[in-house]
Formats: sequence, C-alpha cells, structure tokens
Amino acid sequence: MKAYAQRTKAELLEELGRVEKEYEALRGMGLSLNIARGKPGSEQLDLVRPMMDVLNAESDYLCDGIDVRNYGNLEGLPACRRLFAELLGVKPENVFVGGNSSLLLMYQVINAGYIHGLRGEAWCGQERVRWLCPAPGYDRHFKITESFGFELVTVPMTPTGPNMDLVEKLIQDPTVKGMWCVPKYSNPDGVIYSDETIRRIASMKPAAEDFLLMWDNAYCVHEFAVSYRPFPSILTECEKYGNGDMVFEFASTSKITFPGAGVSCFACSEGNLRRMLGELTVQIISYDKVNQLRHVRFLKDKEGILRLMRQHAQVLAPKFACVLEALEREIAPLGIASWEKPVGGYFISVNVLPGTAMETWELCRDAGLTLTKAGASFPYGKDPQDSNIRVAPSLPPIGQLQQAMAVFCTSMKLAALRKLVLSCEF
Amino acid sequence: MKAYAQRTKAELLEELGRVEKEYEALRGMGLSLNIARGKPGSEQLDLVRPMMDVLNAESDYLCDGIDVRNYGNLEGLPACRRLFAELLGVKPENVFVGGNSSLLLMYQVINAGYIHGLRGEAWCGQERVRWLCPAPGYDRHFKITESFGFELVTVPMTPTGPNMDLVEKLIQDPTVKGMWCVPKYSNPDGVIYSDETIRRIASMKPAAEDFLLMWDNAYCVHEFAVSYRPFPSILTECEKYGNGDMVFEFASTSKITFPGAGVSCFACSEGNLRRMLGELTVQIISYDKVNQLRHVRFLKDKEGILRLMRQHAQVLAPKFACVLEALEREIAPLGIASWEKPVGGYFISVNVLPGTAMETWELCRDAGLTLTKAGASFPYGKDPQDSNIRVAPSLPPIGQLQQAMAVFCTSMKLAALRKLVLSCEF
Repeated sequence: MKAYAQRTKAELLEELGRVEKEYEALRGMGLSLNIARGKPGSEQLDLVRPMMDVLNAESDYLCDGIDVRNYGNLEGLPACRRLFAELLGVKPENVFVGGNSSLLLMYQVINAGYIHGLRGEAWCGQERVRWLCPAPGYDRHFKITESFGFELVTVPMTPTGPNMDLVEKLIQDPTVKGMWCVPKYSNPDGVIYSDETIRRIASMKPAAEDFLLMWDNAYCVHEFAVSYRPFPSILTECEKYGNGDMVFEFASTSKITFPGAGVSCFACSEGNLRRMLGELTVQIISYDKVNQLRHVRFLKDKEGILRLMRQHAQVLAPKFACVLEALEREIAPLGIASWEKPVGGYFISVNVLPGTAMETWELCRDAGLTLTKAGASFPYGKDPQDSNIRVAPSLPPIGQLQQAMAVFCTSMKLAALRKLVLSCEF
Repeated sequence: MKAYAQRTKAELLEELGRVEKEYEALRGMGLSLNIARGKPGSEQLDLVRPMMDVLNAESDYLCDGIDVRNYGNLEGLPACRRLFAELLGVKPENVFVGGNSSLLLMYQVINAGYIHGLRGEAWCGQERVRWLCPAPGYDRHFKITESFGFELVTVPMTPTGPNMDLVEKLIQDPTVKGMWCVPKYSNPDGVIYSDETIRRIASMKPAAEDFLLMWDNAYCVHEFAVSYRPFPSILTECEKYGNGDMVFEFASTSKITFPGAGVSCFACSEGNLRRMLGELTVQIISYDKVNQLRHVRFLKDKEGILRLMRQHAQVLAPKFACVLEALEREIAPLGIASWEKPVGGYFISVNVLPGTAMETWELCRDAGLTLTKAGASFPYGKDPQDSNIRVAPSLPPIGQLQQAMAVFCTSMKLAALRKLVLSCEF
C-alpha cells in the first residue's frame, strides 16, 4: 500500500470510488455503535458485584464508631479518608470524601473561588479571569470554567505533559487564576506527566496569589497494558516549594467500582480543607457514607484496589489492542493519521488529516457510530487543526468494537480522500 | 402550682433556690444528651435494612432498559421519577431525581439563579437581592441565601403559614427575588399551611419576574400522630394562576429511608427542568442511580411509602408524647412557655419567656444537653424575642429523652426565675 500523499490524482480517484462503496455498504448495515465516552463495559461492572453484598447485619453499618446510615461527618467516613489517603500518598487529614462525582467536587471548589474566593478575592467581581487548558484535554473540565465566564487559554500538550515553557510565561499574567491537569494517562492522549513537568508545575510562582491547580488524577491506578506505576503526590511536591495551598487533587472510583455509583474525593492542604468545609456545610449535611463504607469493606486498601485494577486490565487490554491493531493495519500505511499508544487510561487520541476531523465524525455518525464530537477535546469545542478525535474503546464488546473500527477507519479514509482529491484540483 | 407571674418575690426566691439545687443535681450527673437535630433513631434506621438486600444478581441492576451502575440519565432513573411523581402528585416529566441531599439541589437551583439567572438576569451582578424567610424556620435554608449575600427578610409564621398580608406587601419590591417555605409540618413549628395560604402563595404576582418559590416539602408523608393527610401539589396550584415557572418543590427520603443515604428530588415546570439540566450537566455526569433503584424496589409506590411511614410513626409518637407530657406537667402550670402540638414532622417548637432562650440553651449545654442553638430558627441566627427553642426528639431512646426533658424544663425554669426575680428588684 502506498501512502495517500504519494499517489497520483488518478490513483486517489480510484481509491475514493472503492472507499465510497465500502462506506455505503457499512452505512447500509444500520449499525448502532458508541465509542464516545469512557464508560466501563458490563464485564467490568460485573467484577464489582460482590461490593453490594458486604453490608448485611445492622452492626455492619457501624464504622469508626459512626452509624453510617445517619447524618454527619461531612468530611467523609474516617475509614474512607484513610483509604484514599493511602491511594494518593497523603495524610487522612488532607482528604475529603464526597459523593459519586469528582466532577461535582471540582465544580464546588471553583464555585467557592467564584462566589467567596478561596485563596483571595471572589472571582465573580473581577473583569477578567483566565484559565489554562492543556489541550487536547477533557471537555467537561473546560465546560466548568467556561460556565463561569472564564477565558479559556489553550496550552498545547506534549508527550511529557503541558508545554511548560508556555505555562511559565502565561502565569506571569495575574488574571490567569488556574489550570486544569490530568497528570496520569491524560484524557485523551494517555500521556503521563514527566518528573520534570511535575517539578516545574509544583514550583510555579504564578502572579495570581489565588492561583488554583486543579489536578484531576482520574486514572491514578488505571494501567491496562503495564503493571502499576507509582506516581508522586502533587500535594507533597507543591509543599516542597511552599505551594501547598495552590493545589486540589481529585480522584474517584468511577472507573474502579461503578461509574454512576462510586465514591469521589479531593486532597488538599488542611487550610484549604477547612475553607471547603465552610463552603460545603452550607450546601449539604453529609455525603453518602453507606456507599463510602461499602467501598472500604470491598476494596480494603491500596493493594486491594490494585488487585481489582488488574482484573479490569484483563478486560480492557484486548479492547485497546483491537483499536490499535485496526489503526496499524488500515491507516498507518496510508499516512493520513497519527495516534498515541497508551498503556493506561480510557482513551486513544487520533489525529486525522488536518481539516477532516469534523467530516470524519459526521460520516461515522451517519453510519451509526457515535464518537465524541470532533473538537470536544479543545476549549470551546474548537480544534484549531480540525484534526483530533477521541476514541473510547471500553464500552462495547470486542465484536462491536471491530465493526466500530471498520466504520471509523473507512470514514477517516473517505474524508481524507475527498480533501486530497479536492486539493489536487486547485 | 401557681404561675410564676402570680408569685410574690419571696415565693420566687424560694422557688429559685429549689430549682437551682435541682439544676445542680442534674449537672452533677455528667449527662451527654442530644436533641438538636432531626435525626431518626436507630430503631427507625433498622426498619429500612431490607432495602440493602433488594439488588442481588447482575440482572437486578437493569431497570427501564438502563444499566444503573453506569453513567447516564442525569434527570434520574425513570422508575424513580415515576415514584416521586406519584408521591408529589405531578407528572414524571416534572421530576428530577438527584443524590442523597435535597439541600444540595436547593443550593444548585439558587446557585444557577445567582450565576446565570434561571428566569431572568443573574443575581450576582445585582446590588440588592432580598429573600423572604418565614420564621421561625429552617436554619439551613436561611444559610444558603445568606451565603450568596442576599438580605434575609423575616416574615412571622402564624398557625396557618407565613403572614400572607405581609408577604403580599413585600413582593411588591422587585428586589425581593424569592421565598423559603416548608408547607407541611413546618420546621420547627409543625404547622400545615392552610388551603387559603397555599392559594394566596400560588397566585402571587411578585414585582420580580424572576421570583423563585422554594417549596421544601421535607415532611410530605411524615405524620406520626394522625393518618396521612393528602396535600395539594404546589406546581399544579401555581399553574392554575400562570405561575408554573415560579416554583421548585423539593422532597427526599432522608426521613423515610436513610438520612445520610437517601434519594432527593425536585419537581418543577418542564421549562425549568430543561434549564436546570443545562446547569447540572456542567457539574455532574449523573447521580447515583443504583441507590435510586434500591429505593424503587424497596418502597415500590406511594402506598409502600405510607406503609413504612406508619412504622416510623409507631417509633416517633411515644417520643413526641414524652416531650409534650413533660412540658404539660412541668411547664404549663407555671405559664412561662408556650408550644405547638404537632402531629407530624420532626420538631417541637417551644417559646420560652422572652429574653431567656439563650440562657436556657446555655444552662442545658452546661448540664450536658445539646439543643439547636437558640436563635437558629431565625435569619442570621437572631431571634428578636430571644424566646424560641427547637426540640428534636427523634434520636435518643425514651429513657434518655426523659432525662433530656428534665434538664430542659429545669433550665427553662431557672432562666425564667432569674429574669423574674431580677425584674422584681427594679
């Protein structure tokens, strides 16, 4: 097979005809496939079913001297704070355990900064608030800061994390009030921030004294192709440089136990924890401690979590391999896309021929394959290159995933060919 | 026994000496009692234990074609929306089901009005926002609106609900943007709003076009001394007067199943529901549908809920009777306090001799009895009469409750006597 770029116009036209027929055949199958969201598949959910059996007798609901069924302990069940503290390498006093959504905790932290100010004045009264968004990144992060009217500033991702030269320049602007990070198996690239990147982030000296580092460690134990890789505690790293109050680290069991019914947490300095307790006590009496206890009894400790994650890996690895093999086989020889080969996390980030991501997405949609909207990984949903597409292989069974990849690869080729043929004509 | 007001100074001094000794004896017992919060007792929690056994096989987690363990259905599990719709007398399309806290849903609704505006412009940019607070009322309601910097406007409660003449006058001010209500067994008085009050509220024509009626129907099925009393749907009532967009009704199972691990909801117009979905989709992917399904399978329908509430009533009725009997026996003849005799809800509201509530509260505290802080039921925690104290009898077993009432009654007498003796001297 010859790369498309090396083909003549006649060869491209012939290929276009062939690929169009292939696409129409796929479209005619009336498929309904979805690789849009990082949703675990049912095999993974079934791994966790025994968690629902750990609380039986009335005495099972007592833990740390607390009846978990009743109101109280806004900061979380002590045993669950200890569990997350071990996982993240911090002290239990630094951990707040919430409900089923770490996204909500992130929202609540930024909301506190907006309405009352967490480390300085309230942001709501300020004319301009800017926020650093390493991109491609997580659309729901960007949406939170967009919803407060902040200006989203794109920072390109590199194989070692955000472009730190640019970050260090941008934080000299006192209206830059914070930054999103997914430091391990970043969404969508699957990049692990290097030690050097982490050191440079932890030692930042932003002009804004109320700068907030939003460290979403969503995939902290989510290796699927390698064994667990220890990762430094960002709180400890920040403390080394006198930046302990700058950072909130988030984690959850959404992709350890149940996406819709897990437990979330944040870790921060004791001062920040006190401030957030003051904010949250206005909003809620306490989070669901029964579910917190269920998680403690089932997962037990960090080793218990890692053991479960190895079972998840056995389900996930073949799905990621299926996607990567299809890309290698169908696309690599044509030279029309590039992609990362992650060993953890939930996504594969594909960069198609610039200018064809949205058309590829539409072709997939019309053939019954739902992908995350092209551009979603960029601030305001706008990919300046129109090139990035995020693939989430976890939900469908392998058979469906193979069909999905057939649609995806064919659509990618068709969009590329149309563009290349068109560019030959001018 | 003669009322204190009819006693001579000598008689009061003699009584003071006697009550002081009684108080010191109680204080010497080193008690540790708590009747501060509306927390169900463990007997009540045990009634609900079977709810934890309803989800077993993997197939149990499918409902309405949805795998409840995974992400999705931000608006709530359809079956759970139907359950709350039947309970509140509205359509399922009008119901949003959330997590374990209706307080958080209330916060999120007002937060939306503050940051983006729900029915008009955002409140955050406005110089003055005022909020009507029927008092005595629920301290956590008042705190939410206080946290946004709104000005809290006290509206006195009457035996039929808030003073509506005053409400109708106050809403002519366009900076009055909303009102808190607990329409059935109001916290703390236990008052049920009359039909006339409800009609006047539903037909209000506030000057503020973005006025929000926060209708917290926290005790909608919480009769303990009488059988269930049907109650009109405020959404339906408001719609009759073209006010369908004015109201959000809230409810939860916090005092039906578990206070810390129940399910909450709001009911509103379909337009408001769409607007809130737009707000909430930024904050959270979805709430805990596993717990929603657990509630559906255990409670089944409104009749199932009412059946369970009758079991709660059997536990609660003797506790309320214990408090009321102690007040009748110890306090009524002395003429130093008045109280409502609620037949539902979680509180008994006691009005002690004006000017002695805080001292009564402090005397109780020093003798080992925790009560809700005197004044807490009023905006900014300030009771203009220094008279109201809220008693929550649900948590302690009867034996402890009797001790608590001994401390409470003795403290009330002591504070009253000190004040009366002092006023004799001038």
